[in-house]
Amino acid sequence: MRIMKVEKTLVSTNRQAELGHKPLLVVRDKAGATPLVAVDAIGCVPGDWVICVSSSAAREAAGSKSFPSDLTIVGIIDHWNPEDAPAGA
Amino acid sequence: MRIMKVEKTLVSTNRQAELGHKPLLVVRDKAGATPLVAVDAIGCVPGDWVICVSSSAAREAAGSKSFPSDLTIVGIIDHWNPEDAPAGA
Amino acid sequence: MRIMKVEKTLVSTNRQAELGHKPLLVVRDKAGATPLVAVDAIGCVPGDWVICVSSSAAREAAGSKSFPSDLTIVGIIDHWNPEDAPAGA
Amino acid sequence: MRIMKVEKTLVSTNRQAELGHKPLLVVRDKAGATPLVAVDAIGCVPGDWVICVSSSAAREAAGSKSFPSDLTIVGIIDHWNPEDAPAGA
Amino acid sequence: MRIMKVEKTLVSTNRQAELGHKPLLVVRDKAGATPLVAVDAIGCVPGDWVICVSSSAAREAAGSKSFPSDLTIVGIIDHWNPEDAPAGA
Repeated sequence: MRIMKVEKTLVSTNRQAELGHKPLLVVRDKAGATPLVAVDAIGCVPGDWVICVSSSAAREAAGSKSFPSDLTIVGIIDHWNPEDAPAGA
Repeated sequence: MRIMKVEKTLVSTNRQAELGHKPLLVVRDKAGATPLVAVDAIGCVPGDWVICVSSSAAREAAGSKSFPSDLTIVGIIDHWNPEDAPAGA
Repeated sequence: MRIMKVEKTLVSTNRQAELGHKPLLVVRDKAGATPLVAVDAIGCVPGDWVICVSSSAAREAAGSKSFPSDLTIVGIIDHWNPEDAPAGA
Repeated sequence: MRIMKVEKTLVSTNRQAELGHKPLLVVRDKAGATPLVAVDAIGCVPGDWVICVSSSAAREAAGSKSFPSDLTIVGIIDHWNPEDAPAGA
Repeated sequence: MRIMKVEKTLVSTNRQAELGHKPLLVVRDKAGATPLVAVDAIGCVPGDWVICVSSSAAREAAGSKSFPSDLTIVGIIDHWNPEDAPAGA
């Protein structure tokens, strides 16, 4: 699983019906990294450091085997110091 | 899921029957990045910023479990400013 | 899906029985890139630019759910100009 | 599978019920690399060099097909000298 | 599939029962690259250039759908000249 920071909600009015109304959040693993989109299965707010599961496990974690997710937030980290990730990482 | 920009339609006359007539689009996550091919399950036009799902979820999102896709467009983003992705990303 | 160029056939006499006699081709997404091996489900020749599907979809695209493939060629691109991929990609 | 070093336990009080009480460990494949989170299915301690399985195999390795893991520790390496991985790796 | 070179056997006494006694080999795609661990389903010796399958196909290739592998050796390449991979790769 990846450690990522929640930035904001992503608005997509024209979306597949299977996505339902689950919130889609923009997440990044560090400043300057390429942003990704994760399904929120927990209830996060911007600024939270979260645990994101990818691969086939992201589907069921998002609610069902047919949910079209490849990145789902499954936990909020109690305390995370990004400085633990060296600058050269 | 990844945030990508639609560039154009990809023409492939000689293709597997399972791909059917679903549009195949060339997408990139930023200028200069390696282009990828996504199945369009929504109805996009060049220039749209879209949400692409990869991994096993891309198959069912493209229409059925046996659809040979590993990247499927599942939503169009209402407003996306690529500048949100720092130059160093 | 990825856009790759077919280079040559890969000979592997000592191989798993499940691979059968399906051709294995060496493919690269651009000159200098790490070569990968793809199962040819279409009938390509060296020099073709092709669409390769990865992930779990590569198995069924190669012929059956139990086929041990993680990269399968599912289409030949009619016209592809690699210059479309900027040098800095 | 990847060779990674266990750093510490990750505390996530607000987590999906499916994660249960399985320990979540912070792992890195070398100093300075981006940290990842793995489910411990073996019983490791910080400093152990371990074998981590990813992709869909990580789910069942973590206990069941519905376990939301994409990285699970499946073995502890008896002896591992990270110097085997050249500095330029 | 990836083209990798077998380096040596990896010893892991404390491992998941599902791994059984299948040999685990350290493989690299080129000198200096990060080493990975593959399950040997063919019978290789150090120095062999092999074809490794990843993703969900690695599980069944290793013997059964419940085998916890994400990288399995499915063939030995008859002749491989790593010089085919340009230095800048």
